[in-house]
Amino acid sequence: MTDTTREFATIILAAGKGTRMKSDLHKVLHPIAGQPMLMHLLASVDSLGPARKVVVVGSGRDQLENALAGSAVTALQEPQLGTGHAVQQAEIALAGYDGDVLVLYGDVPFVRPQTMAAMLDRLHEADSPKVVVLAFEPDDAGHYGRVIADDMGRIAKMVEYKDASEEERACRVCNSGLMAGRAADMFDLLRRVGNDNAQQEYYLVDVVNIANADGDLCTAITTDRPDEVAGINSRAELAAAEAQWQEFRREEAMADGATLRDPPSVFFSFDTKLGRDVTIEPNVVFGPGVTVADGAHIKAFCHLEGATLGEGVEVGPFARLRPGAVLEKNAFVGNFVEVKKTVMHEGAKASHLTYLGDAEVGAGANIGAGTITCNYDGYFKYKTTIGPRAFIGSNSALVAPVSIGADAIVGAGSTVTRDVLDGELRLVRAEQSVKPGWADRFHEAMRKKKAAAKEGRETS
Amino acid sequence: MTDTTREFATIILAAGKGTRMKSDLHKVLHPIAGQPMLMHLLASVDSLGPARKVVVVGSGRDQLENALAGSAVTALQEPQLGTGHAVQQAEIALAGYDGDVLVLYGDVPFVRPQTMAAMLDRLHEADSPKVVVLAFEPDDAGHYGRVIADDMGRIAKMVEYKDASEEERACRVCNSGLMAGRAADMFDLLRRVGNDNAQQEYYLVDVVNIANADGDLCTAITTDRPDEVAGINSRAELAAAEAQWQEFRREEAMADGATLRDPPSVFFSFDTKLGRDVTIEPNVVFGPGVTVADGAHIKAFCHLEGATLGEGVEVGPFARLRPGAVLEKNAFVGNFVEVKKTVMHEGAKASHLTYLGDAEVGAGANIGAGTITCNYDGYFKYKTTIGPRAFIGSNSALVAPVSIGADAIVGAGSTVTRDVLDGELRLVRAEQSVKPGWADRFHEAMRKKKAAAKEGRETS
Amino acid sequence: MTDTTREFATIILAAGKGTRMKSDLHKVLHPIAGQPMLMHLLASVDSLGPARKVVVVGSGRDQLENALAGSAVTALQEPQLGTGHAVQQAEIALAGYDGDVLVLYGDVPFVRPQTMAAMLDRLHEADSPKVVVLAFEPDDAGHYGRVIADDMGRIAKMVEYKDASEEERACRVCNSGLMAGRAADMFDLLRRVGNDNAQQEYYLVDVVNIANADGDLCTAITTDRPDEVAGINSRAELAAAEAQWQEFRREEAMADGATLRDPPSVFFSFDTKLGRDVTIEPNVVFGPGVTVADGAHIKAFCHLEGATLGEGVEVGPFARLRPGAVLEKNAFVGNFVEVKKTVMHEGAKASHLTYLGDAEVGAGANIGAGTITCNYDGYFKYKTTIGPRAFIGSNSALVAPVSIGADAIVGAGSTVTRDVLDGELRLVRAEQSVKPGWADRFHEAMRKKKAAAKEGRETS
Repeated sequence: MTDTTREFATIILAAGKGTRMKSDLHKVLHPIAGQPMLMHLLASVDSLGPARKVVVVGSGRDQLENALAGSAVTALQEPQLGTGHAVQQAEIALAGYDGDVLVLYGDVPFVRPQTMAAMLDRLHEADSPKVVVLAFEPDDAGHYGRVIADDMGRIAKMVEYKDASEEERACRVCNSGLMAGRAADMFDLLRRVGNDNAQQEYYLVDVVNIANADGDLCTAITTDRPDEVAGINSRAELAAAEAQWQEFRREEAMADGATLRDPPSVFFSFDTKLGRDVTIEPNVVFGPGVTVADGAHIKAFCHLEGATLGEGVEVGPFARLRPGAVLEKNAFVGNFVEVKKTVMHEGAKASHLTYLGDAEVGAGANIGAGTITCNYDGYFKYKTTIGPRAFIGSNSALVAPVSIGADAIVGAGSTVTRDVLDGELRLVRAEQSVKPGWADRFHEAMRKKKAAAKEGRETS
Repeated sequence: MTDTTREFATIILAAGKGTRMKSDLHKVLHPIAGQPMLMHLLASVDSLGPARKVVVVGSGRDQLENALAGSAVTALQEPQLGTGHAVQQAEIALAGYDGDVLVLYGDVPFVRPQTMAAMLDRLHEADSPKVVVLAFEPDDAGHYGRVIADDMGRIAKMVEYKDASEEERACRVCNSGLMAGRAADMFDLLRRVGNDNAQQEYYLVDVVNIANADGDLCTAITTDRPDEVAGINSRAELAAAEAQWQEFRREEAMADGATLRDPPSVFFSFDTKLGRDVTIEPNVVFGPGVTVADGAHIKAFCHLEGATLGEGVEVGPFARLRPGAVLEKNAFVGNFVEVKKTVMHEGAKASHLTYLGDAEVGAGANIGAGTITCNYDGYFKYKTTIGPRAFIGSNSALVAPVSIGADAIVGAGSTVTRDVLDGELRLVRAEQSVKPGWADRFHEAMRKKKAAAKEGRETS
Repeated sequence: MTDTTREFATIILAAGKGTRMKSDLHKVLHPIAGQPMLMHLLASVDSLGPARKVVVVGSGRDQLENALAGSAVTALQEPQLGTGHAVQQAEIALAGYDGDVLVLYGDVPFVRPQTMAAMLDRLHEADSPKVVVLAFEPDDAGHYGRVIADDMGRIAKMVEYKDASEEERACRVCNSGLMAGRAADMFDLLRRVGNDNAQQEYYLVDVVNIANADGDLCTAITTDRPDEVAGINSRAELAAAEAQWQEFRREEAMADGATLRDPPSVFFSFDTKLGRDVTIEPNVVFGPGVTVADGAHIKAFCHLEGATLGEGVEVGPFARLRPGAVLEKNAFVGNFVEVKKTVMHEGAKASHLTYLGDAEVGAGANIGAGTITCNYDGYFKYKTTIGPRAFIGSNSALVAPVSIGADAIVGAGSTVTRDVLDGELRLVRAEQSVKPGWADRFHEAMRKKKAAAKEGRETS
């Protein structure tokens, strides 16, 4: 029944102002799980291999084009005269295209690929509907437009809530706004849509009523997951969508063999990859680009972005891994440690209060507490190389570019500006000056000063 | 109908022991959203411009008077012989006062100003009730006292649950305890209240029954938000009140144009101010006194108190801003950085592992990782001034009072005790001593020592 | 009625593969509240003073024996031929034992001691049942086996769901699998259990039907807390069990007089001890072994393990206390500070960016920001001793073994390798070299270099 070789193009409507977001950022660019909502939708579309992708834009076109970076073309809707008018703006961008079109919405980002495919497939069933509408049955149908259809999904009428009779309002099958049809049919029908209504707008839904009037079949299919057509119009709805996405991802992570001690406090990114027997303690935030291998242990209060964690790696609590942090097998990053663009080879350790940036740390090396790689001079970044099994004493500053040899030792408190060779000890040690009794005299003088200051305040 | 010029005084009952809190802190001083619950209530009262405020106290009077700091007078109830007796103790404090009184409870802190105003307004409607009672209809009326009234709110009887008939118990309208009346009437009626009951207490509610017996009208008004009269008697109820307050505030923040990626993990203070297009990542705690301008981005795991964030400022993850931290436009405070009583001018950056206290950081200055302002000598605090575009090398200690000039550079690992002038380089660098082969010999000796120690354990 | 002197042994079944956990760690060793689930169960058993404890194991025997460390004996079930077969494997380990046996399950860890005791007591009531079965009534009986019994708990039949009639399925009393009986009876009955069923397994439940056929009485008691017999078979169920445990513990903590500002973000360990008037802010994680005295205040984002907090101690935000951290009265540990195996005497303070390991800090001592105790040379750990009222300047490295005297002062930025005596000042200060104008020349050169690099990219 299904003709999978048939081409389809998508028209994604994204011209709305999104006023309720109260934001300078375009509504469909607000991120969920670290990715703009529009990109979630496009990723689902891409999984079906679309022939063309057109995003209909209004205000904020520059923002959208920057974000799309050529992954879809845009069509401008200016002024904005309704959803039907919006779809029409894609006609020029689809000139010469003769397949199906699927109308989606940038602020309805979580429609599943299988639902999109079902709509397109339905077009090619034996009864050849002119238009396929996606319907849904929410718990509370409220003021949604209704789809009046028979048990086979054959649509008798699409009706706005305000125009609906009592009987029609009793129908709980609602219009999601998503629609599919042949491109030629869709644009032909749209040319016949008028704006003779209170808003003086051209409504996409009218194509169904026009086709019906022509005697052409229009059908609805109803999703069994009404939440997939939920629109995002406010920050509260954005937060709700994020929560729903996270909950789904956490359950998936656990089913795949990760322990989440407190699932609600673990935040994944759209592309987080987790191995088996990974343990994640409470309060862990994954930014984009993180891969975690089997048996890694991420303790509480960690923040990871663009990091790769090998087998048996342990991080945290209070670790911050930034892009380019590569922790090989059994490496350890402890509390108040930041790692950026740095490879830590097998078993290397940085346990406390350390910044490793633009560095390579050899296998088994031990980075003492308070170590800082000085990788930046205000203009350029430089690299620090630390050899295998090297021992960097606490509170050391390694001024890059610099190299510390294998098995070398850097004394505590050293500022190292020249290379240290294999097996060398480098100490940077100023004279310790001792002033016996000085502290006692200082304490006495200061106590007097404090008392005087206090007295001064009291007598003034 | 409403006589808004009429004066009112409030009498707030706060003499209860709060035994279930198991605390040495007075119950009404336990904080919600960073503010004692009593202060939440007083803030609502103050928004209506009260003529007088009397807090009736028992044990813990000192704690309460310290907290009130003169913002209300106190009256002592000792011993504590019931709610009617408690209100009577305010009579002396209100000597010569001839307006209305509104009886509130320190452990019922979230009664809304409009509800208080409605009670006072009701006193002055044409039918001139002697007493106005605030009623509520909880989901589960349980053992609350009942208000037996007609549809107009005219009270037939106030009845304790234990004394109520089956029919009376079926009534779901309950007594919140809040009451309004003219001061003179209230104190006259209270003098006629007896303690002929099981507890031998003087109950405030009896004034209604006495007035009724006199043939005077008493009326109830019923709140449509039963949660506003919820009392707080245990730490669990305190946590529930905090949760409810936070949920309301988070929704308000989102409605006003802030993105909260995970609303349940963001904790506001009673006075937090947020601009538009502010982004707040998971796990952010606002202490009192924080103002955030438009477009600021607060990453995960941040703790802010008394801080001011300008437009486009970015902080975190893992940033700690303390009172007096002023971050001007586009300033940046990164991970494991603490800022206290410090102004960071436009675009200044402190990215990692830094403590800035009692400092001023010039526009565009860059504070390297591991920088510490040494602002304290054990007795006094001193100031550090850093010029515009200055570059402080990593792991530096700036011993205040000290000043670093514009465009100046401090070398990594320096302890700076004297001023650095504009455009100067200051390096504090001890000799690097090198011991070739020393580390190799050390490793060998230590491995032997470890092996010997292990063998010793095994043979002992 | 109860014969409390009667001995009992427990047989804990733990041979299941736990495939749905997708883990290399044995299912019953997955931790809840920091303790393997099996240990929670054993702790409950131990509170009743068992005569013997046998854990029946299959795969992962080594892991289990390591975890048990002799606290229970193990019996191997290999191959695994059903629950009846599993219990039989304990017979040799119980040779010569003649008391009662209680059959438990390693993945049903939260059965309460009073429930276990009730099962054992029931055996010794006047009607002397041969077998006592623990039943439960879940909200959804689903596919659980049913216990067909009269109002007195006398069992007519135990029936698997798939073999049950419609009428039997309507019965909501389900079999938890827990069972008690005399050891001799149990093993006699088990020898008569066959495997003539679809799975060809020996089912423990059949002992009831065999005893019934003998005319012996078998009885059920029904728990009023169905959640106590919930099994843990997946990571999602593990997370749910953790959540339930935590919720219970948080309520207990609040009832005992601790303030939890946001209960859901506080994670206790199985053995956390809290005093009265303890305040815990959002996002605090307790690992094992923490004791908190009255009036301590734990701010947001703290991680504590094996730590002891005295009265009035204040920690955080962002503090990390590790095993052996002992904070005496009014000590303070601030942000980005790690304390390990260190005693901080009364009123000692470490406010920022510090690592204290293997140290003793005297009363009233002040540890400056960025202080590091260098306690490790790559082979051994050494101790740092800091005297009362000593003042350690910021950014200091104390190279252990080293001792700082009472009232002594260490200058900021010092690396201290030799002892400092009482009242001494120790300064480690290299020469400050100044290069006037150097920074200006550097900035100019670098700007040119940057411009050239940029131009190079543009023209290439």
